[in-house]
Amino acid sequence: MTTEYPIPWEARAAKKREDTLAKIPAEWRLSPADLDLAAKQRDLTGPFIERFLEPEVIDIVKTDSVPLVNDLRTGKRSAVEVTKAFCKTAAIAHQINNCLLEIFFDIAIKRAEELDEYLRVNGKPVGPLHGLPISLKDQFHVKGVDTTMGYVGWIGGNMGITDATKTHQVESQITKELLACGAVLFCKTSVPQTLLIGDTYNNIIGRTLNPHNNNLSCGGSSGGEAALMALRGSTLGVGTDIGGSVRIPAAFCGIFSLKPTPERLSYRDAANTNPGQNTYRSTLGFISTSLDGCELALKSVLSTRPWLQDPAVVPIPYRQDVFDDVLSRADSSGRAKADHRPLKLGILWNDGIVEPHPPIRRGMAMVAEAVKKAGHKLVNWNPPSHATALKIHHSFLLADGARDVHDHLLLSGEPLIADLQAYFNLRDPIPLLEYQALTVQGLVCEQAYSDYWNSMSGGDDGQEVDAVIMPVAPHAAVIPGKYNHLAYTEVVNLLNYSAAVIPVTKADRGVDGVDETYRPVNEVDRANWEAYDPEIYHGAPVGVQIVARKFEEEKVLGIAKVVHAALKNAQSV
Amino acid sequence: MTTEYPIPWEARAAKKREDTLAKIPAEWRLSPADLDLAAKQRDLTGPFIERFLEPEVIDIVKTDSVPLVNDLRTGKRSAVEVTKAFCKTAAIAHQINNCLLEIFFDIAIKRAEELDEYLRVNGKPVGPLHGLPISLKDQFHVKGVDTTMGYVGWIGGNMGITDATKTHQVESQITKELLACGAVLFCKTSVPQTLLIGDTYNNIIGRTLNPHNNNLSCGGSSGGEAALMALRGSTLGVGTDIGGSVRIPAAFCGIFSLKPTPERLSYRDAANTNPGQNTYRSTLGFISTSLDGCELALKSVLSTRPWLQDPAVVPIPYRQDVFDDVLSRADSSGRAKADHRPLKLGILWNDGIVEPHPPIRRGMAMVAEAVKKAGHKLVNWNPPSHATALKIHHSFLLADGARDVHDHLLLSGEPLIADLQAYFNLRDPIPLLEYQALTVQGLVCEQAYSDYWNSMSGGDDGQEVDAVIMPVAPHAAVIPGKYNHLAYTEVVNLLNYSAAVIPVTKADRGVDGVDETYRPVNEVDRANWEAYDPEIYHGAPVGVQIVARKFEEEKVLGIAKVVHAALKNAQSV
Repeated sequence: MTTEYPIPWEARAAKKREDTLAKIPAEWRLSPADLDLAAKQRDLTGPFIERFLEPEVIDIVKTDSVPLVNDLRTGKRSAVEVTKAFCKTAAIAHQINNCLLEIFFDIAIKRAEELDEYLRVNGKPVGPLHGLPISLKDQFHVKGVDTTMGYVGWIGGNMGITDATKTHQVESQITKELLACGAVLFCKTSVPQTLLIGDTYNNIIGRTLNPHNNNLSCGGSSGGEAALMALRGSTLGVGTDIGGSVRIPAAFCGIFSLKPTPERLSYRDAANTNPGQNTYRSTLGFISTSLDGCELALKSVLSTRPWLQDPAVVPIPYRQDVFDDVLSRADSSGRAKADHRPLKLGILWNDGIVEPHPPIRRGMAMVAEAVKKAGHKLVNWNPPSHATALKIHHSFLLADGARDVHDHLLLSGEPLIADLQAYFNLRDPIPLLEYQALTVQGLVCEQAYSDYWNSMSGGDDGQEVDAVIMPVAPHAAVIPGKYNHLAYTEVVNLLNYSAAVIPVTKADRGVDGVDETYRPVNEVDRANWEAYDPEIYHGAPVGVQIVARKFEEEKVLGIAKVVHAALKNAQSV
Repeated sequence: MTTEYPIPWEARAAKKREDTLAKIPAEWRLSPADLDLAAKQRDLTGPFIERFLEPEVIDIVKTDSVPLVNDLRTGKRSAVEVTKAFCKTAAIAHQINNCLLEIFFDIAIKRAEELDEYLRVNGKPVGPLHGLPISLKDQFHVKGVDTTMGYVGWIGGNMGITDATKTHQVESQITKELLACGAVLFCKTSVPQTLLIGDTYNNIIGRTLNPHNNNLSCGGSSGGEAALMALRGSTLGVGTDIGGSVRIPAAFCGIFSLKPTPERLSYRDAANTNPGQNTYRSTLGFISTSLDGCELALKSVLSTRPWLQDPAVVPIPYRQDVFDDVLSRADSSGRAKADHRPLKLGILWNDGIVEPHPPIRRGMAMVAEAVKKAGHKLVNWNPPSHATALKIHHSFLLADGARDVHDHLLLSGEPLIADLQAYFNLRDPIPLLEYQALTVQGLVCEQAYSDYWNSMSGGDDGQEVDAVIMPVAPHAAVIPGKYNHLAYTEVVNLLNYSAAVIPVTKADRGVDGVDETYRPVNEVDRANWEAYDPEIYHGAPVGVQIVARKFEEEKVLGIAKVVHAALKNAQSV
């Protein structure tokens, strides 16, 4: 059966793209020649994008969230000048990198003016994020703005709301919290159709490539966020993660992220894929150009006591003592202090399914080396089968037979994107008893992993493992269409663990040659291994994830800081 | 199709009953004459059961958990004498009230001997529960003991374990925690078939009646626990609650209970009904002869950091400050302190579906009066529809078409008990998409209730509502078979709120006459209203539940203490 649509989806998407571009002030629009230059440019970051920015703007946008907010809260910089700098940079970023779904610079600048006025009149900032521009993945509703989540059918609306009279009136709870903390919201970033893929491609704006390497994807699903940050169009943003969606793009774009345990932060009134699948929940997370940015965001948002507005949130306030305790164990170079317990970290080199490419191997080795050199303990991590965990997690994401996805596609008649065709064809949902049996299997999986973690806490030292270092993916960024193994991140979702991503290095054709000796152990492993090409990957960021147990957000941030400091120190000496 | 069973289920059950009785030492066995006397006795508590106990035993078993454990930890009383006193009392209680599924006094006394020896040798107790006898609902595995959960098919085994070689070797996590804290475990208490009914009847031992009034049920599903405590056969026990199962029996038997939010305590490795239905989870709770007992249990168990062994548990340590903060707001008579905020409590008189019987109305009025007299604030509570919440919650309990229940029945060929026939006939599970849609409806329900709670926090004083006082059921205890409305407790499960139950008064034919003026508003209301008979109900305990938000266990315990003190004070003046 073919449904007739009064307007073809292609036309609706094209109109939306034009409308979005039209929201960029004329003076920030690039010439066709510049756009052409950008299209041929492998690496858009740093010097390339800076050619379109004034020194004052560069000075602002190269400042990370915490020093920026310090300047804003003390009035050293005005919210308006900072907001304009990020709006302009984001405008350029979008034109050369196609990373935004929504632009609302007008709302942002008006808000910034109000904040400046508030500070002038009251002599104090509105809150801990006073004046800081923050970008949002296009799942979060902002008054006056669309939320399409990449679906053509939701253009002109707010995806998922059932009362059409509330269109453009609704606000997600995280939006309210950020505004209550003084943030300036200015744009919403691109996502892949369905959110359930480690790439960023939808039928409204197409693909967002990796700003560091235009052969590669920026990752996903919070890909627009990470791409924007790699281009310094934002220092802090909110994404979501149900299978790796804040960790993958952060790693691929060379920035930082925090994936909390679900129910630490509020997902209330946000658009999402299949909200009825609440067994393995998507979680809000932060993406930032600095770990301090992630910490600032977590602390700020929790200061609003989100659990009072959203009963799904567990009432755990920000635990400064947990964070401080970790930091007290190392000096500012990440070196273990003699009179404290060193960190004890697990390291997972390979998940038993797919071997990481040479750049990831080298990145992991760099981290291991730096951590050991800094005097911390490292233990090899050989946990219960990730394959089982992956299978269970996948089953939940696919349980509804893609009904939810197809309901949204049907609104406009747009097709599934090519990379999803193999997984998201419409079919019967699985039977309830199978779903409930899978639920038990998932709980057993969590228990087995926890038992393994405890078993590693014994040993000679009797010290518990603080966190585990793992690859984020078996490759640095990825060639679009070649992402065939999401288990490195998905397993962490099945376990509901907390995780942080830090950048480590970049793929380097000079040192990351093809390893001819490796023999793939299965077909997925082979496909991944054969996709590695040192020339194509050259320059792609390599990140690692640091994984702690459930609800250990403060701890994992602290550990990430120590590890990152140790890594910087190892590189500088 | 009829399955052939080598042994009829009736014979297996009879053998089990005999085996259990045989575990009672001969000197504690009652004569046929005494059993006959008990069978004719309306109220078995206090003087009646005490006729079978020595004064020294009565002295011990009338002492509540906290003073008892203080004596045990300091060696003022030996664990052996205390254990023997409770074993004997429980043995009598079981003979006259039929409340135990498992007896293991031998294991208990041996354990008590070891604890006494430990204290003697080390000069310090094993832990915060050193020597305290604790009873368990028959869902928790104890080494060397059956767990049938009332199913004939699990006699000789541990319900739910998949590896038969582990029979009688397996221990639930709560068992390990209690033992680590120094507890003595000595018996497991009866439950209704399925756990999903507010009564206690199974095909192994039949029904457990209310020790205060043998016309009535002891409630359920943790009914054996509450009955045992009403007879002072235990001061502290562990039950579970998915629809009211620790609150109902506590209220019906005139004792105290704490129902935490699911995932505050560990359910790991415990038998349960349909563990694959993990959207609305059953939670462990405590039943005790005192609020201090509930507090002691919560604090002790959390001191073992259950989340490290069970990843389902949210890592929230015992929050002494929260408890203390509530207590600081009132004096020891529950009276609000002049220099502190008084408590602000909602009161729900009627859930809009079924009007409570006169004894409950009077009990609620007594609490309201006492709270107001003590200087606290009371606001009428008119929340979003409990009918909607009830409907959603019910749907989850029935979603699998009773497949899980029938799998267990099929092990022995035993039938469904009569009161479940209307609900638990085997049928098709609901479709997955309906299950997922219900999941969303449940989340919306929680949000609406939370919004209502916040709306009541405004008002003239701007003070937030600390907790809400509600009936536990629309009747005091219940005539077996007449429990037709579980919404007063089930709604709290849908909301995942924390709750405590305190006893208030007893039904009194002299004052709780039939109210001829009330006009039932629906058929369920009418059936309940017509079931009230002052003569039958006379002497039945009346309790109320005090309900706080998610994960507010310490707060709700503190509030219950204040309210209970105010009530005692109002009664004494």
